Amino acid sequence: MKPIIISLGELLVEIMRTEVDVPHGRIGSYYKGPFPSGAPAIFINTATRMSKSFNLTTGFIGVVGNDEFGEEVRKKLKSDGVDISKIRIDNLRTTGIAFNQYNSDGTRKFIFAVGAAGQTSPDDINEEYFSNVQVLHIMGSSLSISESSRKSCYKAIEIAKSLNPQTIISFDPNLRPEMLDIKTIIEISKPVLDKTTILFPSGEEAEMLAGIKGAEKACKKLLEMGPKIVVLKQGKDGCTIYSSEDTNGIKIKGFEVEEIDPTGAGDSFDGAFIVGYLAGWDLKRIGMFANATGALKVQFFGPMANDTYEDVLKLMDKKI
Amino acid sequence: MKPIIISLGELLVEIMRTEVDVPHGRIGSYYKGPFPSGAPAIFINTATRMSKSFNLTTGFIGVVGNDEFGEEVRKKLKSDGVDISKIRIDNLRTTGIAFNQYNSDGTRKFIFAVGAAGQTSPDDINEEYFSNVQVLHIMGSSLSISESSRKSCYKAIEIAKSLNPQTIISFDPNLRPEMLDIKTIIEISKPVLDKTTILFPSGEEAEMLAGIKGAEKACKKLLEMGPKIVVLKQGKDGCTIYSSEDTNGIKIKGFEVEEIDPTGAGDSFDGAFIVGYLAGWDLKRIGMFANATGALKVQFFGPMANDTYEDVLKLMDKKI
Repeated sequence: MKPIIISLGELLVEIMRTEVDVPHGRIGSYYKGPFPSGAPAIFINTATRMSKSFNLTTGFIGVVGNDEFGEEVRKKLKSDGVDISKIRIDNLRTTGIAFNQYNSDGTRKFIFAVGAAGQTSPDDINEEYFSNVQVLHIMGSSLSISESSRKSCYKAIEIAKSLNPQTIISFDPNLRPEMLDIKTIIEISKPVLDKTTILFPSGEEAEMLAGIKGAEKACKKLLEMGPKIVVLKQGKDGCTIYSSEDTNGIKIKGFEVEEIDPTGAGDSFDGAFIVGYLAGWDLKRIGMFANATGALKVQFFGPMANDTYEDVLKLMDKKI
Repeated sequence: MKPIIISLGELLVEIMRTEVDVPHGRIGSYYKGPFPSGAPAIFINTATRMSKSFNLTTGFIGVVGNDEFGEEVRKKLKSDGVDISKIRIDNLRTTGIAFNQYNSDGTRKFIFAVGAAGQTSPDDINEEYFSNVQVLHIMGSSLSISESSRKSCYKAIEIAKSLNPQTIISFDPNLRPEMLDIKTIIEISKPVLDKTTILFPSGEEAEMLAGIKGAEKACKKLLEMGPKIVVLKQGKDGCTIYSSEDTNGIKIKGFEVEEIDPTGAGDSFDGAFIVGYLAGWDLKRIGMFANATGALKVQFFGPMANDTYEDVLKLMDKKI
């Protein structure tokens, strides 16, 4: 059966310093890993875990190397229920690796060995896989990792929309100005933004894409630019959801939890939001559900958590 | 001042499982690293540490990425005294990474993200750098990592020999039949073997290159094929040195030490041997010196040790 929710792009393993303030160049210090990762993969993993009660099938398009890292990523996605039949194995390249290191001042530093992760190609995007699609999720990171990956994202949107103009395109523009200049970010995001139904920016990303200061103003402007819903992600403060019904935004507070590792929380938020949206809930409940899913994630070390739909409901019930 | 001993090829960081029997695909287990590595780099590092008393200058030609891993490799080589002016920084690729994992049955498993390590190019090999060269050391691994690296090695030999036909070419054919088929190994090794003065095979490598069974027979045959000296490396059992003066080989016993990590011991052996050779010692003393250097290395966790010439002499004195 063809998937209802599809995402595509970089599949990675993440290897993290076990302590803060240990630079990647320090010899003999400890790393923990490999943790299955990659922003679009974290999205699809969470969407899959959260959609168990709704009969929503999910699928992923991407590339890993022919090695134990790639096996581990495929195993995690498969065991949580993602269709991995469109994950290609590249015999010439190593699975993408992200070395991640946190500092006590809140900054983090990556070393990124792209390998197979940049090899997602337009040839990997085939119409028949999209025959059942209701949501296609795009990550900004997949637009910047390689030209080939970017073109794959554009092609996926084109196919999804041409098969069914009602297809929801969700877009998390997770592109950082310290990685790419703002002009390039806007340029590569535009073809996606033009087709986006649900946009998931941080405050900084909203300001960049809208070209104005102030997260609220920026989200309102973005709403006028096409998206039906703009979800401002505010980390532990929760989110604010802008839509034509609520142009001033619905503010939904975050959950207070002890943070162990923030990696992947935003991508998990996106995945849960999409599931709530397809379930037909009101925006307030969707936002609370997504907040709770992100909150459970930060209590877990590693980019992809194991929480179930029931775990999330339990956290929500506690609050109410 | 141009270096007297030159090596070239892959510069890596090595990242190792801290415990045995932990496959690379096991999530959340510990790695230790990054350790500066790469067979030709370990060679030059040891040769440099051992040559402090002999006024032997050393230099390396290779490529790292523009990242903390590459900085760490350059820092280690530089701080031990290697000329790193010919180490190029590739802004498009990550420094090469080798993930290494040992099993209790003695096997080990690599995941190898080549990145910048395969980018050494014939354009990096310039005649003026070889004006003072007395020894050029080639590693089999640098012949197999990429075509560009292989051609660089061939070009370096050509330049070194054309500038001075007396240049010593030393060659460690560290090519494993599980990585490459034997036909290819012989084919890519031949242009180097034809020019080799000092050959450093293991028993298995000698058999492969000579095309006959039995390490002793193979070394004798290899000696007839051109090399002036064939040094059979026998790990903790030491080495046997075949030369025109001793066609039956001089057997030199190894040192008994507690093994912590064998990585890089063979490459260190090569480096020490070359220094002893340039110092003009007799073969027996050279072999003992190289054995002792390798023995100190296996007591150290990581591919490049810190032992000095004096440390090695101390271990040799203990034995006598």
